[in-house]
Formats: sequence, C-alpha cells, structure tokens
Amino acid sequence: MKIGFVGLGNMGAPMARNLLKAGHELVVHDVVRANVAALASAGARAAGTLREVVDGAELVLTMLPSSPHVRSVYLGEDGVLAAVRAGVVLVDSSTIDPHTAREVAARAVAQGNPMADAPVSGGTNGAAAGTLTFMVGAGEALYEQIRPVLATMGKTIVRCGESGTGQVAKICNNLVLAISMIGVAEAMSLGAALGIDPKVLASIVNTSSGRCWSSDTYNPYPGVMDNVPAARGYTGGFGADLMLKDLGLAADAAKQSRQPVVLGAAAEQLYRLFSAQGHGGLDFSAIIQLYRKDGAS
Amino acid sequence: MKIGFVGLGNMGAPMARNLLKAGHELVVHDVVRANVAALASAGARAAGTLREVVDGAELVLTMLPSSPHVRSVYLGEDGVLAAVRAGVVLVDSSTIDPHTAREVAARAVAQGNPMADAPVSGGTNGAAAGTLTFMVGAGEALYEQIRPVLATMGKTIVRCGESGTGQVAKICNNLVLAISMIGVAEAMSLGAALGIDPKVLASIVNTSSGRCWSSDTYNPYPGVMDNVPAARGYTGGFGADLMLKDLGLAADAAKQSRQPVVLGAAAEQLYRLFSAQGHGGLDFSAIIQLYRKDGAS
Amino acid sequence: MKIGFVGLGNMGAPMARNLLKAGHELVVHDVVRANVAALASAGARAAGTLREVVDGAELVLTMLPSSPHVRSVYLGEDGVLAAVRAGVVLVDSSTIDPHTAREVAARAVAQGNPMADAPVSGGTNGAAAGTLTFMVGAGEALYEQIRPVLATMGKTIVRCGESGTGQVAKICNNLVLAISMIGVAEAMSLGAALGIDPKVLASIVNTSSGRCWSSDTYNPYPGVMDNVPAARGYTGGFGADLMLKDLGLAADAAKQSRQPVVLGAAAEQLYRLFSAQGHGGLDFSAIIQLYRKDGAS
Amino acid sequence: MKIGFVGLGNMGAPMARNLLKAGHELVVHDVVRANVAALASAGARAAGTLREVVDGAELVLTMLPSSPHVRSVYLGEDGVLAAVRAGVVLVDSSTIDPHTAREVAARAVAQGNPMADAPVSGGTNGAAAGTLTFMVGAGEALYEQIRPVLATMGKTIVRCGESGTGQVAKICNNLVLAISMIGVAEAMSLGAALGIDPKVLASIVNTSSGRCWSSDTYNPYPGVMDNVPAARGYTGGFGADLMLKDLGLAADAAKQSRQPVVLGAAAEQLYRLFSAQGHGGLDFSAIIQLYRKDGAS
Repeated sequence: MKIGFVGLGNMGAPMARNLLKAGHELVVHDVVRANVAALASAGARAAGTLREVVDGAELVLTMLPSSPHVRSVYLGEDGVLAAVRAGVVLVDSSTIDPHTAREVAARAVAQGNPMADAPVSGGTNGAAAGTLTFMVGAGEALYEQIRPVLATMGKTIVRCGESGTGQVAKICNNLVLAISMIGVAEAMSLGAALGIDPKVLASIVNTSSGRCWSSDTYNPYPGVMDNVPAARGYTGGFGADLMLKDLGLAADAAKQSRQPVVLGAAAEQLYRLFSAQGHGGLDFSAIIQLYRKDGAS
Repeated sequence: MKIGFVGLGNMGAPMARNLLKAGHELVVHDVVRANVAALASAGARAAGTLREVVDGAELVLTMLPSSPHVRSVYLGEDGVLAAVRAGVVLVDSSTIDPHTAREVAARAVAQGNPMADAPVSGGTNGAAAGTLTFMVGAGEALYEQIRPVLATMGKTIVRCGESGTGQVAKICNNLVLAISMIGVAEAMSLGAALGIDPKVLASIVNTSSGRCWSSDTYNPYPGVMDNVPAARGYTGGFGADLMLKDLGLAADAAKQSRQPVVLGAAAEQLYRLFSAQGHGGLDFSAIIQLYRKDGAS
Repeated sequence: MKIGFVGLGNMGAPMARNLLKAGHELVVHDVVRANVAALASAGARAAGTLREVVDGAELVLTMLPSSPHVRSVYLGEDGVLAAVRAGVVLVDSSTIDPHTAREVAARAVAQGNPMADAPVSGGTNGAAAGTLTFMVGAGEALYEQIRPVLATMGKTIVRCGESGTGQVAKICNNLVLAISMIGVAEAMSLGAALGIDPKVLASIVNTSSGRCWSSDTYNPYPGVMDNVPAARGYTGGFGADLMLKDLGLAADAAKQSRQPVVLGAAAEQLYRLFSAQGHGGLDFSAIIQLYRKDGAS
Repeated sequence: MKIGFVGLGNMGAPMARNLLKAGHELVVHDVVRANVAALASAGARAAGTLREVVDGAELVLTMLPSSPHVRSVYLGEDGVLAAVRAGVVLVDSSTIDPHTAREVAARAVAQGNPMADAPVSGGTNGAAAGTLTFMVGAGEALYEQIRPVLATMGKTIVRCGESGTGQVAKICNNLVLAISMIGVAEAMSLGAALGIDPKVLASIVNTSSGRCWSSDTYNPYPGVMDNVPAARGYTGGFGADLMLKDLGLAADAAKQSRQPVVLGAAAEQLYRLFSAQGHGGLDFSAIIQLYRKDGAS
C-alpha cells in the first residue's frame, strides 16, 4: 500500500521502519530534515511538504507530539485536509485530547476522508519491536480497513468505539497508571520506613487487593525487581515528562466535561513538582524519589 | 489445642467457628453477651472475664476493632498479660497501627509470652469460608508454631517479617488499594463522560499498564462486572468506613515515621467526605458516587 | 469620547451605563439583541456588527466571557482588528488567560493599535456602583491614556505592568482567594465540630495570623457576619462556577509555565465536585457546605 | 503569687522570666537540668520533682512540647494531679490536641483543681517581649482569676470558651495560616513565572480579596518585604517543623470528629515533603522553595 507518514520522532521513525519492512511504499515527512534523511536511506521517499506526502497516498498516518501540531498538520493552510483526495483514509497515532481528535476527524469526514484516532502504548521499545498496542477510535468498517496496516507495527489492536475513543482509552489508562504508580511509591516507601522488607511487601501486595501493574510489573522501589527502570537508575522507560503531558491531557478533557479528578489533579501536580526539580527526563517510576529520604539510586 | 478467643464480632465469630470445626477447644469472650452466647451454643465455653479466657489456654487469639481495644485487652489491669502464664502464645489478628502492635508484643515478650500480629484480609465472606489471608509479624519459630492454627481459618498464611510487619503489610496494601480504587473511579467516570463504553474501557485498562485489582476484579462502575458490589448497589463487601479506618492507620504510621503520603492523605479525605455525606456503610468501591453525576445505584 | 463597547452581559451592561452617565458617546454590540436594545434605550447607539462598533470609535472596550470569545471578537474574519483604524486604543476587560491576552495584544500592536488588558474585580454590584477595581496590563503611556475612562467605571485603577499582567494579577489574586476561602471553610467547620463558638473563632482568627478577607470580610460560616452571602443562603455575590472558571485559568497558566500549584489544583477540584453536585450557582463561599454535616442554610 | 512552672524550653524560659520580673515567686522544673539552673540564677527556686513544684504553689503553669508530655506531667504516677492540693489552679500553655486538653482538665476538675488550657501565639520573640497572645479555654470565673497572671507574659488575652477551646482556636487559626501561606506561595510563584513584578502583585493582592496575613505581613517571596524571614534566608520566625506539628494536631482533631479537611491534609503533606527534604528548621514561609525553580535565597 502507498502510505504517507508524517512525524518521524522517537516513536514515528521505528513505526515507519516497520511499515517499510512489511513491504509498504512510504512517503515521509518531518520538520527535522535529518529524520527524513534517515528514513529515506531506509527506503522511504522523502517529501518536503505535506502536499507531497498525501499526493498519491492511499492512507496517511501521523505521529505528532501534541494537539497544536495535529491541528496544524491537518487543518493548516497547506495541511493534509487541504491537499488530500476524497476517500483517502487518515490515521492519527498522536496522543492528544479527545476533543481535538473528534474535531479534526469530523472535518476530515465532512470532506470525504474517513479518519481514525489510534494512539499507542508500548514506548520506543514496542515501536522498534513492532509490539505496540493501538487503541483505535473508528467505526467498525474503517477499523477493519486499517487493522492490517496497524498490525505491522503493533501486536494488539483494539477498537475502543467511535471517533475519539482511542484517545479516551489512552488517557484514562494513563490516569489510572500515574495514580497507582504514586500509590505504590507511597506505600513501598512507607512500608520500608516502618521496617518491612520491600521485596516481601511487594510480594504480598502483588497477591492481594493492592495488586497492580505498577507493583507487580514495574515496581518503583530499587532492588525489588530486575529489568525495570528502578533497577538501572530510572533510565529508559516512559519519561516522567511524558506522563506529565498525558496527565495534562486528562486534566483538560476532565475540565471540558466538568468531571472531577481529584487524585488525577494531585498526581499531575506531583509530577510537575518532580519535573520542576529537574527530574522530568527520568522514567516516571522515579516519582518515588519524592518520597524516599535516602534518595533512590 | 485449648485456645482462648477474644472478640466475637463480624470477623471474630466466624473465625472462632472455624477453629471449633477444626476440633480445637475454645474459651471465648466478648463485651457483647449475645455474641458469647452464640458461640457457646456452637460448642465453645463462655468466659465472663479475660482471666477466665486465658486460664488454661495454650494459645490466646484476639480480634478487636482498634488499637485502644487491643491496649485495654492486653495491658489493662485485668487484661491478658496480667493473667496469662509464661510461655502461652499470643496472636492478635486485629488491624491496628504497627507502633501499638510492636509495643504490646514487646511487653508480652518481656514477661515470657511470644506474641505475633496476624491481621487478615478477605472480609466476612473469607472469615466464614475459612479462606482469609493472614499477614503475620513474628519470628520464624513462632510463625511455624502458629501457622497450623491460622490455616484452619485462612487459605494463605504469609510471614511478613518480625513483630509489627503483619500490620505494616496490611496497611500498606490497603493504602495502595484505596488509591487505586479512587484512581479507577476517576478514570472510569471520566471515560464515560467522554463517551467510551465503560465495559470497553475496563477491558482495555485490564490488559494495559492501568491494570489493577480495583479494575479487573472489583470494578466500581455499575454494569462492568457481575458479582461485585457495584452490581448490587454497593451492599456487602468492604465498607467505606472500614477503609477510612485503615487509611487513618496508614496516616498515623506515616506521621510517626515522618513519611509523606500525599495521595494517601487525599484518599483519606475523600473517604471522609463520602462518609460525612452519609455513605460510610456502603462498600468502599461506592466512592465512585462522588464522581458520577448520575449517581450510581 | 466616542467609545465602541462589545459585551453587554451582567458585568458589561452596567459598565456601559456608567460610561453613558459620564457623558461618553457609546456604540454597543452583543450577540444577544435584547442586551443591545436595553442599552440603546439608555442612550447608546446599537451596532449590528463589530465593524459598526469600531467605525469612528476613538476607543474600543470589550467585556467577554472567555478566551475563545476574545479571540473571535478581535481576531475573527470580521473582527475588531480587521475593521479598526490604526491608532485606535483597545481595552479588553474580560478575565482570560494571560497567554491569550498577550497574543491578541501583540497582534493589535503589530497593526498599530495600542491594547491593554484590564480585567476587573468587584462583581455586578461594583459594576453597577462604578466601584470596580481595574487591574491594567499596559505600558505607562497607554495606562495614563485609558485611566480616565476606566475611572468612570471603577474606584481603583492599578497598573500591574506590561501587557498581560492585568490578567496575571487577577488570576493570582483569585487563586489566593479560593484557597483561603476553602481554608477558612475547613477551619470554621472543624472549630464548630470541636465545640468553639464560630463567632468567637472568627474574631480570634481575624486578629491573628489566620486573618484574611475570606474570614474577616466574607466569612462563609452562617451567623458569623451580616451582609454576606452566608447570611442569605449564599445567594448573590461571586458565583462558585465563576470561581471555578478563574481557577481553570490559573491552572492553564500554571501548566503553560510548568509551575506547580498543588493547593490551587485541589481547590479547583473541590469547586468542580461542588459544581457537579449542582451548587455552581451559589456564591463561592458556599463551598463550606461540602464540610458542614448539618448543611449550611 | 507563688507559682509552680514546668517546662523551661525556648518558650517556657522567657515566659517564666517575665513572671519573675512581675514579682511572682517561682518554683521551676524541667527535664533538662541546665534549663532549671538558668532560671534559678534569675531568681527562681529549682525543683527536682513535680511534687516539689506544686508544693505550696497557688497556681501551676506548664509549657510542654506535646500531648504525651502533658499527660505524663499531669496524670503520671508522680505527676501534678497526684501531688497538688485541691483548689490550686492549673494552667497548661502547651499546644496540644483539644481532646487531651479536655480529658486532663476533666480529671483535674474532678479532684477539685480548676484547670485552663491557654496556648499562645507570638513565638519566642513574643515570649521574650511579653507580647504573646493567650487563647484561653476556661469558665468565666477561672478566666478572670488567671488573666492578671497571663497578662504579665502577654499582650492579648482572649477567652475562647469552655475547656479545650483555647486549643481549638489555636489549631484552627494555624490551619488557616498554613493553607493561606501555601496559597500565597503558589500565587506569588505563579505570578512571577508569568512575568508580573512580585512587589506589584503583592500590593494588588493586599488591597483585594486575596488579602491575608501571609501576604501583607509575612510575604514569603524574597524582596517583597523587609523584616520578614524571606528577607533573611528564612531564618528565625516560626519553624516549618512547628507548623507541621500544629497541622498534625489539626489533622488528629479532624479525624476524631470525622471532619474533612482536604486542603489542611494537603498542606500537612507539603510541609512533610519539605521537612523530609531537610528544610524543617527554616521558617514556615520557606515552603515557597518547593515552588520556585530558581530556589529562594
């Protein structure tokens, strides 16, 4: 299939490479020329403008950092919607707020372009390995149409409902994730301060009602698990500043729907404090450093 | 074995019955005479005083509502420690703060009575079915000694470390539980307000990084799961006021060890607001009613 | 002076009337025709479009509900900037986020129109009585130029600094206000629950380090003061939903500058909970109803 | 008058000196012998035991660090109540939780000793200068009886109501104080980040609805005021750890009366985080350092 691909950052680049490997024909674009050049040397065709990207494409896929970028790329004067032929399918894999996702999709549909939101989880490792999870907001027919393409980049492709629900699923999952991670950080730190062995505490929580991914798969307390960021100084993984961004999306969506998110707002502030103290580049499980007096190396 | 048992409430009574079923000889006491009578008709010997309870007992087990009760029953003028022979083993299954647990155990040990803290999880259903989890704070020898007795009342018996660590494990687990339950309540409510099907959202979270017991086993959103309190008007289960009590224990322990618990404190306040609005008797997952505009029947 | 005035709601209408009383010539516009008609019968000239408003005006003043309205009125295709002659002074008295205020002002200045942000405090009573406080973000020369006009609508005219700082002052003041109001609500409720006479408690706080406007001028506890919303069922005053809007502006500004506002975020959530429970139309001091078990009539 | 005085710490010692200066005859006691010696050299009689302190005293005054100390000094086996003659008046100026204050007073009254709680504000400077504020929980007759004595140590003597209400007033005032201080810290930091001159912002808040003691008398932002801790590196003043202690008392009292204090709990956690980071010895206005990226010198 001939695919236009916009956004070749840490996530987009390996995703595009997997599309190439699967035999798709790619036309790629990014504001950073070096990113384009790297994909070109892997077999993609470089495009200098969005118009070139969509020209002749059967499907356009975008992976951008934030809502304003998505608005600009799709709705801008020389953007995708201005250039694309009717009927071409659009897929945005950026993580953005659901309201923007729905608005852009509605504009696309109004001019005859089916559009899906399909944000991912799985991080840069998952993008490279082709094991991402795609959370797709799209009608059933459109979902069936794009699923084979997404399957070359991911392992799990889930339809969440109509337009925008992919974003809703993503930000709601990450809202639970941030809150439970901080909860585990507080409980592990409290337990250690009260004299229980952190490994023992984790093993009990993991077989009890406190069981959660943040404890049994990604425990933030150093020494409890191997092969997690806590075991390597909180490098790699999912950055605290990325979690902060997702919490901001959840907060925005909550505000627009007048929905209280008390712990969610507190979690956002704790990550902002942590980031303001200079730690935004660490894995998000490093938030436990706010709580451990001895630091957490 | 001849066992003295003090505290025949909602938890203690079924636990005592399971000890009787297992063939132990029980002498029981409670401040409520009717509770004593009920056990007596099931084969226990009724004791009017703590002195009678411990007289001749090889092991004394207590199941009391709070730290002051534990202090009074063990350390009071006519309490267990004043009456018990040296060498008799003491087990307290109350959920109380670790500092009190350690202080009482130290006093017991000082006069020659090995003492373990062994709080439980599993609720009244688990107590009746004999499937409780016991979190035991005791030296290894003492743990091996009491394990067979606990095993007649529970399915999982875990040694958490030395004296007090059973309580630490219990309150730390429940701290994570309360925080993740509120996190799930916020995310499910937000997702629903943003237009995703709650069942779909739960299924995605349950296979992603937001996965937790509060979502996959005890989801608070009505209609998502059967056989949970949310499916029956939040009756039964683990009461919001009991969770509030456990959060209070965690807060006290955190204060005494000067350990911050930011989300934990917020969770405690949310449960207190909920309780002040008259809902403390509902299951703790009913906290989602604070967040759902349509109520949650 | 010939003044174009856009936005004749609860605040704008009485402000426009005070300009008329002071002898200014007014051309007025509002999306609600009845609002325009009311001012026309008071002596203003009705304008059906923004172009008519700015036509011939020496100064244009706007009083709008939110940032999108301000963007639309100033930057829209048929908006103020498209129609206004170079040199005409623009004053926006809406309460909006500082980033939008600065962006619109920069666009105005770029085409030769000096522009000030001048949000107000004092409520509808202050607007009617001409006793508003104007917080002005403008260069000194511009400030001196517009001050006489503002002085016909307000008692206190303060220059806060360059463009945008009027908005900054407004949202920062209201951030302190919301937090201290909730603080007073919690302390008064706690004190009453602990058995002190609320009037006595207020009098002590008001002469001690807890002294604040929310306690000594606008006490939320019923019976402590006369002539405050708490004395009349929380009617009138500054609505909880307006406070919620201002807290949202503070939260947005804080996010954009990556500045933590932990209590500010908690205050926003508490007002959102309160609003979701159906009380957004009450005065903002009614937030104490979240805390008083006996309700607060 | 012959006065027994127990507790010669940073606050108690200068208070005792002022009683001596006023011509009272003092018998003093402290667990630290050097403290007793210092007062003895100023003219007090040293007592080695509590029994000696109360022997012959017409009034006993205590100034102790916490509730357990008060319990021990009054209710201990060799404590004040065990030794004191019926009729002797007891005054406790410690800051403790109201429940303990009431319990101890009830025990005193039951054996014929009128007892008042009379915690102070004003800090060590106020203690030295004799300008403390006393918040007195006592019946009217008892209040009139002890007022002249308190007046030799303080400038403002307020009757708050019956037994315990002095403590209630103290902790409720400090609850408002902590919350409004953090509110001011957040708003000043946000304003500065958004580009307003902190002095200008403070002057606006101080004449608007955000006005409060934390802003107009004790502003935490460096450079806004002279003669406040912020002007001298947050030395002197009222220590963050003392504020943390008082917030703990408020939290305990709130828990016992099942009263929510959402911002109060958040404030306690923020001070605990700040203290855990090693800053508990700074003035409590230094909490702004959590919020300022540039630190706060």
